[in-house]
Amino acid sequence: MGFEVTIRVYWEDTDAGGIVFYANYLKFFERARTEWLRSLGLHQRALREREGGMFVVSEASVRYLRPARLDDELVVTARLEEAGRASVVIAQQAFLRPPGGGAPDSAALLAEGRVRTGWVDAQRLRPARIPPLVAERLAQASGLSLHPFTNPTA
Amino acid sequence: MGFEVTIRVYWEDTDAGGIVFYANYLKFFERARTEWLRSLGLHQRALREREGGMFVVSEASVRYLRPARLDDELVVTARLEEAGRASVVIAQQAFLRPPGGGAPDSAALLAEGRVRTGWVDAQRLRPARIPPLVAERLAQASGLSLHPFTNPTA
Amino acid sequence: MGFEVTIRVYWEDTDAGGIVFYANYLKFFERARTEWLRSLGLHQRALREREGGMFVVSEASVRYLRPARLDDELVVTARLEEAGRASVVIAQQAFLRPPGGGAPDSAALLAEGRVRTGWVDAQRLRPARIPPLVAERLAQASGLSLHPFTNPTA
Amino acid sequence: MGFEVTIRVYWEDTDAGGIVFYANYLKFFERARTEWLRSLGLHQRALREREGGMFVVSEASVRYLRPARLDDELVVTARLEEAGRASVVIAQQAFLRPPGGGAPDSAALLAEGRVRTGWVDAQRLRPARIPPLVAERLAQASGLSLHPFTNPTA
Repeated sequence: MGFEVTIRVYWEDTDAGGIVFYANYLKFFERARTEWLRSLGLHQRALREREGGMFVVSEASVRYLRPARLDDELVVTARLEEAGRASVVIAQQAFLRPPGGGAPDSAALLAEGRVRTGWVDAQRLRPARIPPLVAERLAQASGLSLHPFTNPTA
Repeated sequence: MGFEVTIRVYWEDTDAGGIVFYANYLKFFERARTEWLRSLGLHQRALREREGGMFVVSEASVRYLRPARLDDELVVTARLEEAGRASVVIAQQAFLRPPGGGAPDSAALLAEGRVRTGWVDAQRLRPARIPPLVAERLAQASGLSLHPFTNPTA
Repeated sequence: MGFEVTIRVYWEDTDAGGIVFYANYLKFFERARTEWLRSLGLHQRALREREGGMFVVSEASVRYLRPARLDDELVVTARLEEAGRASVVIAQQAFLRPPGGGAPDSAALLAEGRVRTGWVDAQRLRPARIPPLVAERLAQASGLSLHPFTNPTA
Repeated sequence: MGFEVTIRVYWEDTDAGGIVFYANYLKFFERARTEWLRSLGLHQRALREREGGMFVVSEASVRYLRPARLDDELVVTARLEEAGRASVVIAQQAFLRPPGGGAPDSAALLAEGRVRTGWVDAQRLRPARIPPLVAERLAQASGLSLHPFTNPTA
């Protein structure tokens, strides 16, 4: 499943339907991407100060399979699926942690999606090539070689 | 462009990148869908009390073209694109309102997406057929006939 | 009641208790303060670009009297209560709009609070004196003279 | 400092000022209260199903001392300060975790506040006496005896 984080469902995440509000899965996915980057030594605030750029989402899609509720514990994953010079695609899933703990199985899948996030310069927000330091870390961690083998326009 | 609402960007909508946080477009889209339903006489809290059901999103996708910033005024649209017995697909767009006011043109498109939302019974959250009252209002408003001509499994 | 804005309660605002989540009243209050400032010709993004500073909240308190629910229409107010060289205190209330419309009475009061917001330079976030342009507009609008008669350390 | 949780600052928590949006401290405080209750064996969703009631905030106040930023790690505390038949007051603080880890000192205090939360029946949201099971757990954990020594009208 790739990198994973544990996320608890709090009151703030739910809505009057008694379930997690649909937009909040994009928050959960973002937390998982951020922790995955951190696990690679990529800290986004520091990156912005040093490299003058940041990742900005250009596409996101989510399928919602089962609702989550207050007090549920979720396992949220991030896996590099595609990498280009200027953007990467991350596949993400949210599972319900089984009541007794342990790894969730596929029946526990609550939502899944894909997020394309592109590098932009932080001032003008124009797309830019992912800095070499960042590209290397992503490549090493994923087993994908980011620049040579991928779509240069992505 | 179909039904539209005006939405102001407040501090709560922005993030440290200086732009609207990507998940918040799903909030804006939801507000536009809710106001579109309200314009058809469909009030979701009342519907739930009377019909025992509610709409729950089953799929959402967004393409982000240009960022929005604090104090921007957005025009957010909702248009019924597809209708089935148990779910509908809404096409949605967010535009930047021109500084002098007036209707935005296509160059002002900030984000666009599609949202599939299905009817569920509010207790068990199981998919159910859209109640006749709701289906009729949607059909009249959209010029689509909801049940006869559409995919019965959607 | 001072300046007021109308705010609709959407799914995003509610929680699994079926009511507006308590933190979201601070969002509503912020929207009312922002629109009040805008009504005085004070646009916060422009102010930051021109003056290099912004308002940051230093104290907030809220009393919650009655809950609000999905689809409710609220009237949220902002009134300058106290003004100093570096900060102002805004008194704020949220009322339920009566079903038939019109002005809410005191029985419709849902929440009320006070927010102290101070001027800081945007780079280092250090407290600073409110710029003369901003102070003048606040003074004219409120009938309070901001600088001479108020606590210089506030 | 009482019970504490660790909370990471994500993009969703920040605003265009580059800092954590002021309302979001109430989210952080809520998470700390929820985890504190959970540590006492009090699970709010289960409580609601079993007891038919829930805690709803009736008063909240926050003082903001220093801003938090993206990627910061916070330590957020909850401590029972006052207990009545129908409500409790929780004192809460948010500290910046030192870069090298370890316990934050008082210079790292970012925000502090007090939250009064009252028990209500979940259907009609009317104030009610805290159920004995809940009152006992709170009393044992806190060293406060909830009912005999406290203000019966609180």
